[in-house]
Amino acid sequence: MVNDITEYDVVGIGNAIVDVLAKVGEGFLAERDLHKGDMTLVEAQKAGEIYADIIPEREISGGSAANAVAAIASLGGTPSFIGKVHDDELGQEFRRDIGAAGVDFFTNPLMQGPSTARSIVLVTPDAQRSMFTYLGASTHLSVDDIDEKIISAAKIVYIEAYLLDDPQSAEAMKKAAQLARQYGRQVALTLSDTSCIERHRQELKDFIHSNVDILFANDEEICSLFEEKDFYKTLDMIKQEVDIAALTRGEKGSVVVNNRIKIFVEAETVEDAVDSTGAGDVYAGGFLYGLTHGRTLGTCALIGNIAASEILSHYGARAEVSLRGYVRNKLRQYGKTL
Amino acid sequence: MVNDITEYDVVGIGNAIVDVLAKVGEGFLAERDLHKGDMTLVEAQKAGEIYADIIPEREISGGSAANAVAAIASLGGTPSFIGKVHDDELGQEFRRDIGAAGVDFFTNPLMQGPSTARSIVLVTPDAQRSMFTYLGASTHLSVDDIDEKIISAAKIVYIEAYLLDDPQSAEAMKKAAQLARQYGRQVALTLSDTSCIERHRQELKDFIHSNVDILFANDEEICSLFEEKDFYKTLDMIKQEVDIAALTRGEKGSVVVNNRIKIFVEAETVEDAVDSTGAGDVYAGGFLYGLTHGRTLGTCALIGNIAASEILSHYGARAEVSLRGYVRNKLRQYGKTL
Repeated sequence: MVNDITEYDVVGIGNAIVDVLAKVGEGFLAERDLHKGDMTLVEAQKAGEIYADIIPEREISGGSAANAVAAIASLGGTPSFIGKVHDDELGQEFRRDIGAAGVDFFTNPLMQGPSTARSIVLVTPDAQRSMFTYLGASTHLSVDDIDEKIISAAKIVYIEAYLLDDPQSAEAMKKAAQLARQYGRQVALTLSDTSCIERHRQELKDFIHSNVDILFANDEEICSLFEEKDFYKTLDMIKQEVDIAALTRGEKGSVVVNNRIKIFVEAETVEDAVDSTGAGDVYAGGFLYGLTHGRTLGTCALIGNIAASEILSHYGARAEVSLRGYVRNKLRQYGKTL
Repeated sequence: MVNDITEYDVVGIGNAIVDVLAKVGEGFLAERDLHKGDMTLVEAQKAGEIYADIIPEREISGGSAANAVAAIASLGGTPSFIGKVHDDELGQEFRRDIGAAGVDFFTNPLMQGPSTARSIVLVTPDAQRSMFTYLGASTHLSVDDIDEKIISAAKIVYIEAYLLDDPQSAEAMKKAAQLARQYGRQVALTLSDTSCIERHRQELKDFIHSNVDILFANDEEICSLFEEKDFYKTLDMIKQEVDIAALTRGEKGSVVVNNRIKIFVEAETVEDAVDSTGAGDVYAGGFLYGLTHGRTLGTCALIGNIAASEILSHYGARAEVSLRGYVRNKLRQYGKTL
């Protein structure tokens, strides 16, 4: 069953979400009784109401795993994505956009039921962002969407923990991991966020222990997973569970744990960090690009840090320049090549 | 002038010393007014007197850089050594022994003047070691001994800081570094010991800044170099000076600093560590074997740590088993290959 030809560096599996950015006046939120700042999960009706009243400025495909594979494509890699959209306008938008980013995306859309997931990002004149996310069709990802040909054709299957939030998606995620193992592929997981970990801690631990080769998390998430306050102690805990743990720490840079080896890599200096949304996703994308291109773990983390620094410097979770050029120029300063 | 064919992984340049091991009774030291424990530098006459009175049990080629290249040979690498012996019995012994270890050694012997350097190691019934070192011919290494063909044929030139103790050897060391640069080879240096650093701190700093790509030191030595008590602070100081710093910390393992990356590697557990002599040399040999065989910096440090652990488990600075087999077996446990 094992096929040594891998067409893809990475296949990402996660929620397919369109980020809809719009500028609104200060009164817009208050008039609709909407919470300002942070991210709020909303139902279909609420999302529809907000969407009807705005003039979308930009609509770009988003979602954690999708952001990571888009970064891989921007670095010059060859990624694929599995996720569920509806066959509606936003779904078609997601498909066009992720395709234009260089990511293969073949998952069949929902023909009925909830509409494509969207995260409506309202930017008020004070430059604050208020996000309203409706998960819709994205939670309808099922085992039937896990294409054996794609899983077997990718060196690494990259999964977001958010998939555990829906029983159907959770089954899909487990099937993907099982297929990956069957074909001798590696399984990577991102812990998504601390509230997701709190909802599924034991299930996540079991999944990691049985399936995961490469774990991505930030310091808060890894501490939450083990219910341990001391970040340094979690390093010796996670090394028992996975082959590689790549842990981000904001301006403290990132740490890679590989058995008896711990690699500390400094963060890039970002003069005007305006928005950290997607930085973790892009770090993971950069790291996985390096790993699938034979780079050392230290260089993988460097690539991740540099790629993430591009995202920090503007709004939105997708790079505004070619990450390949951006990362290559920075790496050159450290005597390394991409 | 640059030749891309490198016959040797590493050429070591250092003091050529024969370690003479002998068992003596408790009274032997006291009768001769000799200091028990540690290492004492002695003059020719004193060395001759001690040597005349003992029954040498083992005579093996030693010296810091020589120990490192012998480890490289035992790991399956191809090293060479440059150092000065006299054409006396001990000198011939050094030549035979280092050759049998798999190290090329072509330096012309002294035909007159001081005899071959020796370190007489007296082991008393309480298992304590008292070392008496006579540097003799080894300090007569001169620029004429730095064979351009050998330097240009080695990927890395590995130098011990002890060479600064003699003006003639210091000139030879600088010529070797200059030739290495000319041929596009890397220069590695070991800081030898803290008293050596105290004698030559500024000269060492200048030499490192201008010539050294790879620095080896233990925690005490790197702290002494920068006159800085906090080991962690020295990591950010040394990264400005060299491409790679590989720093050992005894049972705390080792740390590799490479620009923005710091790699912490756990030490091997040694149940009955009896003698740390040569452990730093063998670590450097293991690290350089990895580096010249395309291994990641983390794996280089692992190889160094494992090779050093073999040395710790018995008396003497040379491995008692094939380091290649020993290291390969340990690495396999960590999912890595040699």
